Amino acid sequence: MAKILDGKKIRGKVLEELKPDIEKINEMLAPSKLCLAIVMVGDNSESAIFVKNKKQTGEKINIKVDVHHFSEDITADELVKKVSGLGGDNEVHGIIIQLPLPEHIEEQSILDTVPLEKDVDVLGSAASGKFYVNDKDFPIIPSTLAGIIRLLDEYEITDFKGQNLVVVGQGKLVGKPAAAYFNRKDDKDATVINPCSHTEDKKLYKRARFIISGAGAPGIIRGDMVRNGVVVVDAGTKTDPETGKIQGDVDFESVEPKASYITPVPGGVGPMTVAMIFYNLVQLEKQRLQLK
Amino acid sequence: MAKILDGKKIRGKVLEELKPDIEKINEMLAPSKLCLAIVMVGDNSESAIFVKNKKQTGEKINIKVDVHHFSEDITADELVKKVSGLGGDNEVHGIIIQLPLPEHIEEQSILDTVPLEKDVDVLGSAASGKFYVNDKDFPIIPSTLAGIIRLLDEYEITDFKGQNLVVVGQGKLVGKPAAAYFNRKDDKDATVINPCSHTEDKKLYKRARFIISGAGAPGIIRGDMVRNGVVVVDAGTKTDPETGKIQGDVDFESVEPKASYITPVPGGVGPMTVAMIFYNLVQLEKQRLQLK
Repeated sequence: MAKILDGKKIRGKVLEELKPDIEKINEMLAPSKLCLAIVMVGDNSESAIFVKNKKQTGEKINIKVDVHHFSEDITADELVKKVSGLGGDNEVHGIIIQLPLPEHIEEQSILDTVPLEKDVDVLGSAASGKFYVNDKDFPIIPSTLAGIIRLLDEYEITDFKGQNLVVVGQGKLVGKPAAAYFNRKDDKDATVINPCSHTEDKKLYKRARFIISGAGAPGIIRGDMVRNGVVVVDAGTKTDPETGKIQGDVDFESVEPKASYITPVPGGVGPMTVAMIFYNLVQLEKQRLQLK
Repeated sequence: MAKILDGKKIRGKVLEELKPDIEKINEMLAPSKLCLAIVMVGDNSESAIFVKNKKQTGEKINIKVDVHHFSEDITADELVKKVSGLGGDNEVHGIIIQLPLPEHIEEQSILDTVPLEKDVDVLGSAASGKFYVNDKDFPIIPSTLAGIIRLLDEYEITDFKGQNLVVVGQGKLVGKPAAAYFNRKDDKDATVINPCSHTEDKKLYKRARFIISGAGAPGIIRGDMVRNGVVVVDAGTKTDPETGKIQGDVDFESVEPKASYITPVPGGVGPMTVAMIFYNLVQLEKQRLQLK
């Protein structure tokens, strides 16, 4: 029987802790206030849910969340102009590009348009550089990864050194940053293993004490693949087109009995990511205002 | 009996291929010519050998190599000023900071002073960002990694998809970029495993079809640790303080009989790295001059 890593509960704690800083920032910014801009293109229903979550959460903690919703047929050039406009807008302190973008738009070029000091998701090339070279002066790390680390921390799961940690997925939101981060010698120093759908050696999963999954492939991690006592963090989010429910990468029913700790989906990494977006926004603005 | 991955031979081929481009660039730059600046601090004898190699190689292919040698006690601020000066110098087309720097200087802040368009080693935060987000418009990747890939390519070792590839080392020159690169989904798509000195699960090495090592820890990879037929690339370089010889991470004598391909040290990755520095310099300058 695994303990549940309760992302909803910890989200509440993180947001509560942010309130004094937000109050101080809002006083300094008055009559305006701390503002996150979310750029959304097209009518992806999954994105719409995430954006709504972010907006509601922000408003609860006295942060303005402006959603800039553009139609599917916006050109890349137009979108760059819009994002540049937000980048130069003094009333906007953080910018999120809600992914995915429509196929005709190259994502990275849009992400690169977000200025470093407003890149709360750490997805632009400049902020990514700071993250991958481990620049201590840059105060934030990618929000989903930050959420995973904070969640594990809260349950005192901190000893990764020399332990096998499987990262599933090769994307920019979870797989790539998690693999790099957990392997850092001066930090977690885990033995990171990065299998994917083509991996021939399926036994690698069974060697893992920790599994962090962000593949977006529902149910690929099954109970028969993992060892007893494994800690499982599921950052996969794929909406079932029939039921509309969000599904993780982990087959909870078969994995949970073998795990020592496990995140539910929903209610695990998702809420943590939302909390850490606002955490990141606050840190960037504190740095800009030179608050301690 | 393993086949030798002959870095010296392939270096010659790479340099030969560069000559027409160098000639074209030098014509455009006349009366000046293509120039690489190497910044070296203190009297590290290992660094002195590497710098001498680079200078000799450059001169052979009609590239100017200026060595800027500063004393051990230069301050970080002074060094930043010197590197900024080279960054702004129109007669300098590429800059290398020879590592390691003395302990009182924070390496990354110096590396970050190299302008993106002159960062032939891809070690500054801006260039690193381009590499880690896989920006196709940035024409180069870190030089040692580039050397490893080119060397494997030349021996038609190109099929990594879904195969276990062990990367040993967590440094910015080899471990980090190699782990990220070989895991890219739209490229090599290998299953990357990143063990280190603290790794408890020593059997991971035996599961590897490929081992790329850049730990700088002589002899840590031994024959009893690897499987038959493994491809071994040794990017470790540590000078034996007694003999002055450069030593790799791989215990060649015991590993070679089990390997299918193996790099010697010296004569494997080292010469390739030097070749790829000039390859990178040429690519950056071609891009600046808008040459095809």
